[in-house]
Amino acid sequence: MNTNKPYVVGIDIGGTNTVFGIVDARGAVIASSSIKTAKHSNIEDYIDELYNELTKLITTHDAEGKIHGIGIGAPNANYFTGTIEDGVNLPWPTPIPLAKLVSEKFGIPVAITNDANAAAIGEMTYGAARGLKDFIMITLGTGVGSGIVINGQMVYGHDGFAGELGHVTVKRNNGRLCGCGRTGCLEAYCSATGVARTAREFLEVRNEPSMLRNLDIDSITSKDVYDAAIAGDKLAQEIFEYTGDILGAALADFTTFSAPQAFILFGGLAKSGEILMRPIRNSMEKNMMPLWKGKVNLLLSELKEADAAVLGASALGWEAKPQEQPQQ
Amino acid sequence: MNTNKPYVVGIDIGGTNTVFGIVDARGAVIASSSIKTAKHSNIEDYIDELYNELTKLITTHDAEGKIHGIGIGAPNANYFTGTIEDGVNLPWPTPIPLAKLVSEKFGIPVAITNDANAAAIGEMTYGAARGLKDFIMITLGTGVGSGIVINGQMVYGHDGFAGELGHVTVKRNNGRLCGCGRTGCLEAYCSATGVARTAREFLEVRNEPSMLRNLDIDSITSKDVYDAAIAGDKLAQEIFEYTGDILGAALADFTTFSAPQAFILFGGLAKSGEILMRPIRNSMEKNMMPLWKGKVNLLLSELKEADAAVLGASALGWEAKPQEQPQQ
Repeated sequence: MNTNKPYVVGIDIGGTNTVFGIVDARGAVIASSSIKTAKHSNIEDYIDELYNELTKLITTHDAEGKIHGIGIGAPNANYFTGTIEDGVNLPWPTPIPLAKLVSEKFGIPVAITNDANAAAIGEMTYGAARGLKDFIMITLGTGVGSGIVINGQMVYGHDGFAGELGHVTVKRNNGRLCGCGRTGCLEAYCSATGVARTAREFLEVRNEPSMLRNLDIDSITSKDVYDAAIAGDKLAQEIFEYTGDILGAALADFTTFSAPQAFILFGGLAKSGEILMRPIRNSMEKNMMPLWKGKVNLLLSELKEADAAVLGASALGWEAKPQEQPQQ
Repeated sequence: MNTNKPYVVGIDIGGTNTVFGIVDARGAVIASSSIKTAKHSNIEDYIDELYNELTKLITTHDAEGKIHGIGIGAPNANYFTGTIEDGVNLPWPTPIPLAKLVSEKFGIPVAITNDANAAAIGEMTYGAARGLKDFIMITLGTGVGSGIVINGQMVYGHDGFAGELGHVTVKRNNGRLCGCGRTGCLEAYCSATGVARTAREFLEVRNEPSMLRNLDIDSITSKDVYDAAIAGDKLAQEIFEYTGDILGAALADFTTFSAPQAFILFGGLAKSGEILMRPIRNSMEKNMMPLWKGKVNLLLSELKEADAAVLGASALGWEAKPQEQPQQ
């Protein structure tokens, strides 16, 4: 890394907030801040505000001229084209040529990728995947995302969209409708939203008492289920068993593809601890091909939750090169 | 490629025959021959015969000192360790340090991999995958094998065993017992053996007339089913529909992993033509994430059947390097 430019900037664009920070080569977040993603209906205005706020941060921390690159994690962001593609919950018309817009504004090389890939790169650079050349990051949030690393390289596929493991079909018959328009996807069961859906399904179909019955059934969240499970509620615990069973079986299938050393779980739901990890681990081992039984690790992200998104995106900043910018 | 050593040798070790040939840089098989794999209960004797027969071939075709490397495709062969691992239908105790034994005998660098990976490398070097950087080879033979290429590189995984897509679970409940000891694997449905099992299942459970009923139910083969289907037998045609449905849905799932440009089908069953390709294609498109609908090609191997195994293995010979040999 160029010692004249010892920092990178990480930007994580979410539907609500855009969080950004300055990160050094050891993965310390020197400074961070955020703006509201949806404040501007015009992408240029949004980038103007991002520029102003980030420049303040850079100036305050004596980092002018010391930024090696900017890494951006955003939904449906394509590493190859530098654009945010269709079908995302952002206030601007797609496709958005984000890498071009940001690099032109800042005069700094920019690389972008989707949020799950950014998480995988962050984990490989600073977290639980340091030293691992073959691993799969699974993000368990509102949806289920994934970032696949094979032989030390991020898998982008021929079109930049590889690693959509949340949309592998886990229920072939009578599967739940997924946001992608198909049915039975992993994401419809093993995301935070999926856990809430399982809760509603169990409560409607079954008769056992549960403290979840005291809640408005339509607004139950995965956090409610977690709290009930921790408090000893049997039905809530079964919801986590059900979730872990499905996810573990899927991980066993994923192993046949790239024979990873480890799966690394990340995101809100991954913080459920053993109540989720135990059934995932049991199901993964039960469904694993004999060849890999006991050989694939199930790990939790080691990135601090508050910094993780910015760190993940920032790690991509080290890779950003001016000549890699498309459409220039 | 070193013009002083313009040839490679490809060796394909099957349960019955070991086929080998001398191949030039354009993929022309200069000469080939074979020996019986199971003739010798001692691996050293087997390698002695292989050495004698191959040396004859090399001498006859004026190729002494002109062999760049030897590539070997064999069941359960591990690229990283150079050994044939446990659990294969070969007459010698495993693990077999094959790369070491052959390179010591011949004094030529040797690289080995499993048969499906060898097929993928052959297709990339000489066949339907020329110019493709992201594709997945699916071999439909006695079993279902796969070779995955991402960004121009063969995927071996952390342990050399990646690409066991025949053992992805396609039936979670009441799935057929698979040779690997688990149930519901793709291979139990979409291999030649799987097609024969489907035939037996359909014939037992259903009442429609079928020319397959004239055959001994226990010895029906996928070839019998193919012949009946081509002759217009409705039940036999449904067996291919059923097989294609399952395989196409699996290919759609595989796409979410590495976003390949194409799947390339190879092996006996792949020669069934449109009677199998049409249901695979239909099911793949039906089950495909919207993002990839209409974008992933379904191709047939372009390697000549008689040469394919040797060609595939030989392509690996160009990669063989003395220092890559393990345990030396």
